[in-house]
This record gives sequence, C-alpha cells and structure tokens, in this order.
Amino acid sequence: MKTFYDAGIVGGGVIGLMSAYFLSKAGLKVAIFEKGKIGCGASSAAAGMLGAHTETEKADAFFRFAEESGALYPALAADLLEETGIDIQLVYNGMLKLAMTAEEAVSLKDRALNEPDVEWLSRESVLKKERNLTEYLQGGLFIAKDGQVSPPALCRALARAVQINGGTIFEGAAAGRMRAEPSHYEISAAGETHFCEALVITGGTWSGPLFEGLGISAPVHPVKGECLSVMPDGFRLASTVFHDSCYLVPKSDGSIVIGATMEKGNWRAEPTIQGMASLMEKAVSIMPCMKKSVFQKAWAGLRPAARDAKPYIFKHEGMKNLYAATGHYRNGILLAPKTGEMVRDLILSRQVKPEYAREFGLNRGTEVKS
Amino acid sequence: MKTFYDAGIVGGGVIGLMSAYFLSKAGLKVAIFEKGKIGCGASSAAAGMLGAHTETEKADAFFRFAEESGALYPALAADLLEETGIDIQLVYNGMLKLAMTAEEAVSLKDRALNEPDVEWLSRESVLKKERNLTEYLQGGLFIAKDGQVSPPALCRALARAVQINGGTIFEGAAAGRMRAEPSHYEISAAGETHFCEALVITGGTWSGPLFEGLGISAPVHPVKGECLSVMPDGFRLASTVFHDSCYLVPKSDGSIVIGATMEKGNWRAEPTIQGMASLMEKAVSIMPCMKKSVFQKAWAGLRPAARDAKPYIFKHEGMKNLYAATGHYRNGILLAPKTGEMVRDLILSRQVKPEYAREFGLNRGTEVKS
Amino acid sequence: MKTFYDAGIVGGGVIGLMSAYFLSKAGLKVAIFEKGKIGCGASSAAAGMLGAHTETEKADAFFRFAEESGALYPALAADLLEETGIDIQLVYNGMLKLAMTAEEAVSLKDRALNEPDVEWLSRESVLKKERNLTEYLQGGLFIAKDGQVSPPALCRALARAVQINGGTIFEGAAAGRMRAEPSHYEISAAGETHFCEALVITGGTWSGPLFEGLGISAPVHPVKGECLSVMPDGFRLASTVFHDSCYLVPKSDGSIVIGATMEKGNWRAEPTIQGMASLMEKAVSIMPCMKKSVFQKAWAGLRPAARDAKPYIFKHEGMKNLYAATGHYRNGILLAPKTGEMVRDLILSRQVKPEYAREFGLNRGTEVKS
Amino acid sequence: MKTFYDAGIVGGGVIGLMSAYFLSKAGLKVAIFEKGKIGCGASSAAAGMLGAHTETEKADAFFRFAEESGALYPALAADLLEETGIDIQLVYNGMLKLAMTAEEAVSLKDRALNEPDVEWLSRESVLKKERNLTEYLQGGLFIAKDGQVSPPALCRALARAVQINGGTIFEGAAAGRMRAEPSHYEISAAGETHFCEALVITGGTWSGPLFEGLGISAPVHPVKGECLSVMPDGFRLASTVFHDSCYLVPKSDGSIVIGATMEKGNWRAEPTIQGMASLMEKAVSIMPCMKKSVFQKAWAGLRPAARDAKPYIFKHEGMKNLYAATGHYRNGILLAPKTGEMVRDLILSRQVKPEYAREFGLNRGTEVKS
Repeated sequence: MKTFYDAGIVGGGVIGLMSAYFLSKAGLKVAIFEKGKIGCGASSAAAGMLGAHTETEKADAFFRFAEESGALYPALAADLLEETGIDIQLVYNGMLKLAMTAEEAVSLKDRALNEPDVEWLSRESVLKKERNLTEYLQGGLFIAKDGQVSPPALCRALARAVQINGGTIFEGAAAGRMRAEPSHYEISAAGETHFCEALVITGGTWSGPLFEGLGISAPVHPVKGECLSVMPDGFRLASTVFHDSCYLVPKSDGSIVIGATMEKGNWRAEPTIQGMASLMEKAVSIMPCMKKSVFQKAWAGLRPAARDAKPYIFKHEGMKNLYAATGHYRNGILLAPKTGEMVRDLILSRQVKPEYAREFGLNRGTEVKS
Repeated sequence: MKTFYDAGIVGGGVIGLMSAYFLSKAGLKVAIFEKGKIGCGASSAAAGMLGAHTETEKADAFFRFAEESGALYPALAADLLEETGIDIQLVYNGMLKLAMTAEEAVSLKDRALNEPDVEWLSRESVLKKERNLTEYLQGGLFIAKDGQVSPPALCRALARAVQINGGTIFEGAAAGRMRAEPSHYEISAAGETHFCEALVITGGTWSGPLFEGLGISAPVHPVKGECLSVMPDGFRLASTVFHDSCYLVPKSDGSIVIGATMEKGNWRAEPTIQGMASLMEKAVSIMPCMKKSVFQKAWAGLRPAARDAKPYIFKHEGMKNLYAATGHYRNGILLAPKTGEMVRDLILSRQVKPEYAREFGLNRGTEVKS
Repeated sequence: MKTFYDAGIVGGGVIGLMSAYFLSKAGLKVAIFEKGKIGCGASSAAAGMLGAHTETEKADAFFRFAEESGALYPALAADLLEETGIDIQLVYNGMLKLAMTAEEAVSLKDRALNEPDVEWLSRESVLKKERNLTEYLQGGLFIAKDGQVSPPALCRALARAVQINGGTIFEGAAAGRMRAEPSHYEISAAGETHFCEALVITGGTWSGPLFEGLGISAPVHPVKGECLSVMPDGFRLASTVFHDSCYLVPKSDGSIVIGATMEKGNWRAEPTIQGMASLMEKAVSIMPCMKKSVFQKAWAGLRPAARDAKPYIFKHEGMKNLYAATGHYRNGILLAPKTGEMVRDLILSRQVKPEYAREFGLNRGTEVKS
Repeated sequence: MKTFYDAGIVGGGVIGLMSAYFLSKAGLKVAIFEKGKIGCGASSAAAGMLGAHTETEKADAFFRFAEESGALYPALAADLLEETGIDIQLVYNGMLKLAMTAEEAVSLKDRALNEPDVEWLSRESVLKKERNLTEYLQGGLFIAKDGQVSPPALCRALARAVQINGGTIFEGAAAGRMRAEPSHYEISAAGETHFCEALVITGGTWSGPLFEGLGISAPVHPVKGECLSVMPDGFRLASTVFHDSCYLVPKSDGSIVIGATMEKGNWRAEPTIQGMASLMEKAVSIMPCMKKSVFQKAWAGLRPAARDAKPYIFKHEGMKNLYAATGHYRNGILLAPKTGEMVRDLILSRQVKPEYAREFGLNRGTEVKS
C-alpha cells in the first residue's frame, strides 16, 4: 500500500511542527519524519523567551519578521489550548536588560531613545522591580512586552494538533535516501518509502547532511547551549533578567531557568562541568541570593546556525517543490509561528513579503557574522 | 536567641501550607515544621481534582464544606499568581462519571434528578464528548463545574507566599518533643527549640504519633494510593473520566494521570507491580486507545484517614491554643482552602459555622465508615 | 586539516564499539560516528543475558558462533576492568527455563538429553533453587553456565578503552553522505568530512538507510522490545528465570529486570501501557511475590533484525574496503565479542571460519524466519 | 495480635542496618523502624570511601576502631553477595592525598614517615599514576590499602539479608512515642504499637529528638554535604584523589563522584548552586580535564555529628536494655561493620574493648572539636 502526502516534513522540532501545523490547518495532508522524538533537540532545550528586542538592535527585515512572529503567539496559544487541551504557558512578564558599567548604561539608554516599547530604568527603579538583584547594577532597560512560552509544551501541543488535524508523525524515523521524481519525492524512513508532493527540510542542526543529500549547499553548524534550572529559596523573580549573555527566566512552576552557554561546533548535546560552573557564577553575580537556590536539572541543546546567523526559509529555485526552513539559531521559538506561516504560503503559492524571501533565501549575500 | 512565633504548624503538606498562608495573610508570624520536604507526602501525590460531587452523594455538612472550599479556588489561584508568579493550573474541564451497566445507569440518572449542576448524558452524547471511550458504556453523568489544579504547583505557590509574607519554613525538621508551657508551646525541631503561642497539628498520615505525644487520641491511618501518568499518542482527553474507582485526569501539559489504588494500612509510599497493573487494566477498559500511550512515571502517596473518613479540624477543648487539621483522606486538595480559613478563624476566635465545628471536631460520633 | 582514519565505524552501539575496540587494540586508528549517544539504542536497552542455549535449539553455525562469543567474555571483562576501571558486572548465575505444562516439560526434557551443560530439574528441585516461583510449574531446565553483563557498563567500558587506545568517538554525529573514492571513503558527519580507508556499517536498526545510501540491499527492520525493572521486597532471585518469552533477570544491584515484549516494525522506542501491563502480568504468573515489588523504571529498545533473523557480518565483495556488522536481533550483547573479532579479522585479512563467512554473508540464502 | 522483637532498631541507615544484620545473624528477632526509606539519608549520600588514614592523623582508639572496621569489609562483601546476590562493589583502588604547596608537602611527608601503609610520592611519581592531575602539584601521599564500596548497594544488601534472616523492616515508620516498660519497650510506629526487649537508637542526624523523647541528652547536629557525579570524557581516574576537603572518587561504572561540601546546622538535604559551584571549581583545579566531563546528578546528605565529632556507641547505664549507635559524622560507611558488631556484643553481653566503650560512651569527656 502506498500513501501519498501533500507535504513531507523532515525534522520534528518546533520549525517542522509549526510548518506542519499551518499546512494541516490549510487542509494539506502532511507527514513529519523525526529521527528521534518530537521536539527532542534544540526546541525543547530552549528557555522559551519571546524577545524580538533582545536579539537584534536594528529595525531591519529580521527584526520585523521577529515582531510579526511574536505577535502571532496570543492567538496561537488560545487555538492550541482549544484544540489540544495543552497550555503552552504564554506569559508576558517582561525583560530587564541590566547595565553593570557606565558604558553599558550609555548603550542601553541609547536604545531606549530609539526603540519603541523599551524603557530605561534607573538603578533604584530596577531594584524596586527586582529587589534581589546585585547592588552593583547601574540601571537597566525594561521591555514590558517581552514574554515567554514553555517550549516542550509548545512542541507537544503542535504535535497533537497536527495529529488531530489528520497529519502523521513518524518518530525514530531518520530520513535515509530522499529521491526527486518528476511529480513527487520519495523519502525512505522508518523502513518504508513514503511519497510526498512537496518536501520540506526542517532539520535544525542536522539540516546540513540533508541538504547535502539533495545536492544543495547551505551549511548549518551547531552552537551548543547549556542551561540549568533551580528552585529559588523563598524569593520570587518577576521578570526575565539578562546580562552579559546570561539570562534568568522565571517559569510558571516557580523555577528559574539559567541560560545559556555558547559553543560553536560542538555536537555533543550534554551539559559539562565547565558550562554549568560558568552559568552558576554569572547567575550569582546578577542575583546573589541565587546561591541558596536548589538545583533541579541541567541540559544542553544545539542551536542551528547558518554562516550569517540568519534562518533559511525558502522555496528552492531549481528543484521542484523543495522547501526549507532551518538555521533559526537562538530564535527558533520566537520565529516559529511566522516561519510556519511562510512555509505554508510558499507551498500554497500565496503572497510572501519580498523582503523576507530575499533575507532568508538560499542565495542571500552571506557576509559572515562572527 | 529565642524566636517566638504566633503559630507553629507541624506538617508542611497542603493543609499545613494553606493554614500558614491564611494565618500569614492575617498578619500572624508563622513557622512550618516539615519532616521531609514541603508537599512531599500525600499532597503532591494527588491528582488534584476539585470534585465535591464525586466524593459524596448527599448534601450534608461535609458536602457544603467541600462546595465552599472549591469555590475559594478561583480567587486563590489569582492571588497566588500575583504574589508568587506560580500558576497553580486551575481549570474547569468537567468530570464524566461513566455507567457501564444498567444498574450503574439507574443510579447515576437518579443523582442527575436530585443534584444541581449534574447532567445525565446518553451513550451517544458521552461518546460525542469523548469519542475514544469504550463502546460498552451505557451513558454517564457530566459535572461541568468540576475542575482541577496541579498539587505540586499549589504547594510550591503556598510555600513561597508564606515566605514572602514573612513566615518561616523548616524542612528536614521532624518535630521531636512538643511541650505545653503555660503561655506557649516549645517545639523541638531541626536541632533547636522553637516557641509558639499556638500549635497546629497538620501532619496528615503522621498525625497519629504527634497527637499521641500530646496525649490526644485521634487515630489517623494511611490509605495508600498509587498513580501513574502517560502521554497519549495523538488523541486528546478533554474532561476527567471516572469509573469504578479509576479516574483519568487530563493535565495541562498534555499528559493523563491514571489513579488511584486504595490500600488501607500500608505505610510504604512506593508504586508496586500489582497496583500499576490494576490501574493500567482499568484505564484500558475505560478507553481502549490508552494501550498505546507512552508511560511517563509512577508514584504513590498515603492518604490520611480517620476512622469515619472525615477530617479533623478543631481547637482542642482541654489544651490551650492547640489546634489540628488533618485526616483529609481523598479530599485534601479540594478541602484545603476552606480548612485553612477555618484554622485561621479558630485561632483568631472568629465565627466558625457550628455544623463544621461539630462535624470535624475531636469528639464527633465516630461511627466507622468502611 | 584533514584527518585520515584506518577505519570509520558508523554506529556506536555495542557492535560498533566492540569492532572499534578490537581494531584499536590491533593498532588501527579508528573513528566511531554515532548519531545519538554511545550505546543509546538497543545496546543499553538489553537485559544483558549471555545464553547461547536460550536462543537456539540446534547446534548449527549460529550456535557455535554464539558459544565462541560467550567464551570471550571472562577475558574481556578482566581486560576492560584493567584498562578502564569499569566493571561490566559479568556473573554466571545460571538460567532456569520453566515448564508449566506437560508438553513444555517433554520438550525441555528432550533438550536436556541432547545438549551438553543443560540439566532437567524436577518441580521440587526447581522450587528448592527458587522457592518463590509459582507452584504451577512442572519442572525446568537449568543451564548453569549462562551468565550476564551490564550492557550500559559494557558500552561505557568499550568506549573508554577505544579512546584510551587512541580512537576517536563522535557523538551527535549522524553520518550524512558516505562517498567511495578510489583509495578511501569520505564520511560527512558532525559538520565535517572525514577520510577513512575502511568503512564499517554497524548501525543496528538504522543500518537499512545506511546500506541504501551505499547502494546495498540488506533490509534490517526493528523489533521493539520493552523492559522494566523492579526492586523485590525482601526476597531474592538467584538465577535468571525464563518462560513464554518473559525473563526475570536478577541484577547485581538487587533489582530484577523483566523483559521483553516483541513488536515488529515499530520504530518508537518508548514503553507503552500495553507492553508494560503484559510484562507485569507474566512476571506475576511466574513468581507471584513479584506483585509486591517496587517499580523502578521502564524503557524500550529496537532490536535490529534481518529477514532471516541472523546477523550480517561481511566484507562486501563489490565495494573496496566496505564492511558491515549489524542485524544482531535479540543477541547483540552475546554475539558482540566474536563479531568484533571477526570484523577485525576481515579488515586485517586474517583467517575467518568459512562457515561464519557463509552464514553471515550478504548473499546467504535468506529463507524468511517468522 | 502482639509481636515481640528481641531488638527494635530506630533508624534504617547503614548503622541501623548493620546492627540489625549482625543481630539477626546471631539469631535475634529484630525490627527496623525507618521514617523514610531504607538508606535514604546520609548513608546513600556518601561516596563510600573506606579510608581510616584519611580521617585521622593519630593512632588513637578511634583510628584502631576504624582500622578494625575496614578490615571486616572483605568477608562482609563476600557474605552479602552469597546471601543476597547483591554486589556492594568493594574495591581497593587506593587514595592519593595531594600536596599543592611546600607546606602541604612537608606535612604529608611527615605522615609517610610515621604511618604504616602510607607512601610519599614525588610530583613525577604522582603524575605517572594519574597523568591528568594538575601540574601544580608538589607530590602526594599514596595509601594503597584504601578502598571503597557503593553505599546504596550496601544498604540494599544489608536490608535484604536482614529480611532473609527473619528480620522485619518498617518503612514510612517514624517512631512516635517510645515507652520503657519494666520488661520491654513499646514503640509506636506505622500506626501500631511494637514490643521490643531491647531498644537501639540509630537515627543519625535525627537521633537528637529520639534521645530527647527518652530523656537522654546527647546532642547530634547535621553537617550537610553536597556531592555530584560526572562521566569523564575519554579519560580514566584510577585512584581516589583528595585535596583541600575535595575528593574525586572513581566508581566502578566509570563515573567520578566529586564531594563534599561541609555546612554545619543546615537541615535541608538538597544541593544548592553555591555548593555545586564550589565543588566544580575545586575538581577542575585538581584535574583540569574535569572541565569537559558530562554532568550526571547532584545530591546532598546530612552527616550526624556529636559535639566532639566522635560516634556514640553505648549501652545506657541507667535505662535497662537501651542502646545507641549514632553520630558517625563523615565515617558512617567505614565504621559501620565494627559498630554493628559492637552493638551486637553489647546486647548479647559479650566482651567489648574497654577503650571503645570509653571512647564512644555517652559520658566521655566531650571537649569540643571545631
């Protein structure tokens, strides 16, 4: 028996799931091929912050895409709860970016002048908001609109919604040979050959070999990130706090996620002594009472990064019905909804903003971003 | 250095925490002495259902107390989120009580006639609500108002709120000697002697030895309950489903809790092969597609039961400033808010409904309930 | 910088590790490419039994290979302890195969007559050995020479020994494109291209797509197996007990592993309610006191099976320096040492027994074994 | 129904278990009353080192007791394996005490001169033994005779042996009231009254309140210790290494335990950020390659300490048939066998060395040891 799918999606992280979700809601019959378990890679390792402002400093196409994507979350959260009963724990508790030195203060104040929705707070105002922060701070930016979700809950909700909408999810299903036939693709996975009209590559860090198998050159490398979670001892952190590449994210179960290290080219998704010790040190320097927090667990994920650190979201120009959405680096959770919509629109030949097609295309200029 | 507390609460389960919460909000300085960790006993083992209707069939004092207690949850959930940032995951997703035989159908229909907020649904209507239920069912009661919370989140939120309100929590602090002095109690715990004007016994299953140490006879025995949680494979359960002492509770992370066994007099809070196998069998008989669900974890707790299965909530008549709230059996989570209020009111000499004082007093008639 | 390896081994389960171990001891420079973590698949899910007698009933080439392989364990365990400090927990505690019916008794007695090292025990003798077994048994075979190891410890010890001997292990390193060049193979993995003189496919259940990528037809399908472990309550199981495809294996930490289900074609390596309930039921029927055992954990693995359920261990006749060792089905742990030796001997052009080359070759007659 | 026990042992840690083991082997009918689970406190949190030399520097009664106790382990390990099938993982892999400064080198060399079985090794000799140690070391003491066991395995093996020998273990059984009657003690635990001819207090950190309940003054306070375990990345540690209150202990599964912090008076047995960060820092300073080790887990335990840091092992002079063995501080695992024998000998009125009776008696001079 042969089963034909309208779209075969290779990679069951948040990008593949979101693409499948929007496609299945548009009436397409989709299949996801995931080599491990749904959301088992970088997606579930993320802290889940939705901060367009924290990831870029200029109002470029990337920034606009991020903003539009973030704006999709409230309706998405409501829909997923309704459809699946799963609460993705969307909250808008804001983000505090700290200045510890005069230089940092100048730089952050400057941003407050030039960006909307961003407010400079004096040292006293910051400490009034979060009285447990280090006294050495100089002030901080407050971005009230920043929020967060639970990435594992988001992945589970999307997977369940896809299945309820008639989609099929294969786990333990590494895609072997992917062959282009005139009218479709044949994907070998989980011991069978599957037939798909469109093929969508959403393999995160593992997209490189998938592209290679199709003769496409689009390098994606891992940037390993380690995190840990702790239960604070009798105090509360209200907003996410960020300084010097370390964030403290208060979760709705009362825990705090501390993240994240950055290590380029490391493919081993396991937390090390070195990574954890550096996170612990930074967390305590930001908030001294973190010392007494009770350790819960540690983990690691591999962020997929293209050379210019921008995602690939494209319809291939040479190969029929071939699509890709990958390389979302530090912003997979934030960018996922808009990415899913864009994949759907590309496949259904709907209008896609030219600046996004250009920015995230296979052949954009790729000046290297260190 | 001597520290005096207005109230010393012995036992850090949901009853002790809720008592401490209401007392600390009323301005009292409280301390909780917990032998293990906060909420580590029956409280966190519970599935978290808030069903006054599912636990009793007559509109007696117990039922009214349960209804009033459940009605406190919406405001409590909002207050705890505001105060602590912790979401106790209160949802009202309803409860379906199934009839599998003609006899069960007659009995449940009869309840639908006599009780408010309870609706009899035909076989077809039940299957329309939950299409994965066994086809052997005859119909069911639907109680739309029933809801649930996350017991571990509730315990953590209460503990944090108590601390934020100035209360002290001692963990690893088994209460040793408790001595009544003319003006206060001396409690030996965690290597120190603590001084408390009022003493509140909230030790759950371990209240018996505490009462004994104070010369009070109020036996409390354990009724062990085992639970397990699974992740359904591609389907959704919308409401809690109940039949023949087995419930399936859909949680907001997409998992389903299956509970609970009943074993009188067993003090070992660990899940056994026998208990788990019986739960699995019942769950599959209620909903055949549960077979394919992925196992997550299993656990057990000890429900504290007095001889007549009703809680003790009282001010002792012979001993000055001695209070107790324990023996909440299967209903600790549901009854906790009203219990906490009643403990507060007893200590502050506020008005308490005479029927509750009688029903839950130390010397009520205790006809044995099997 | 280009690194050349004498052998690139694709798949870091027990077969790949053992091949790498013997090759590195023979002085070759090896690299292992593992898509997940070392031993994370079927290898660590196994119960670790070393029973040549329990897996086959005739003294054929497979049986001889199994016996020779098992005989390598004592020296291997000693070497690994010496080299790595890791104890693979080799013990020879024997295996009891139970007869529950008269027919089973006849069949087992017959084996006792025809096979060496196998003894028929009467009902009383069996119960004297293991007094907690069900009284319904008719007797049993006792195979005193059967033993076991700890599969996770074995994988860790082999990995460490390979590294200490100068080998390289890449984790998170799914092999993408594998290209045959005149003098070597190029393997794309972990974002780099690696150069290997010999290529060894040891991918277990995932060997199928690897073979496909090389243009080889050698189907391998998964046979999912679920297991659970329990801590017995106050009693001891001395030997492994087997009946009706269920085994109870006493481990050296005092726990008992109960295994294993068999499900063909299922690629999801997760334990389900159905699988666990069936194991629990069988375990209790074999030994009633298992009812009270405390549950510890459950897991699943995918046994790799060729159509005739025999392993593939071969040097490819058409492709230069291409080797494979996979499809070890239920016997990966038992067969690993001899398999590792045979891979080494094939690569080093040493003598290999013709009957093994024929039996495990790519082109053996493959009558289907159900 | 009344059950009489020859001895009731209050506390199911390694001291209580070992006492019960030797008593039950001597033919007595024993019961253990454990408030949580067997070995759940300090006993299972220990790293399991058996180093008489590492805990004391003078050849006093304590040292002799420790040496005699350690010498009991080989026969004990063999007996427990035979009786229970559980391997307590006794190995003698030696201990390296490092000197990092000239002062430390002088002090350690001095010990090598004065103590048997202790050898001073030059920097080069130490690095030859363990080539991954920091190059900043000056040399070290090597104590070849030091060994280790697995504390959780030891506790499980003792518990099973006690049960097999006819003893009874109550878990979840906090002892409430303990009342001395003319001919026996009545212990209220697990909802029943138990009758014991002899009463033995082995409550570790929680012995204080138990003594108090019996009117005995023998303060025991907790000294919290945190540990973590890691899996080294491709290297091996052969011996235990010790410097500046930090040890690295190689376990037989290939992991390394890093321990342990010291915090007086803390009753919360949970690992904190501060404790873990300090252990990680020390471990890396001792062996830089520990940086890349993969984190496995963290835990904490409460060492029970009397004011002079010596254990209490005595027969009470005023109360009939009352015994105690507690306060073993950092040396519970090492001292347990000899302690168990001494408890047995005291109860059976056998000869006990006067110096031990004096050293560990209730009324020894207790000059405070800081």
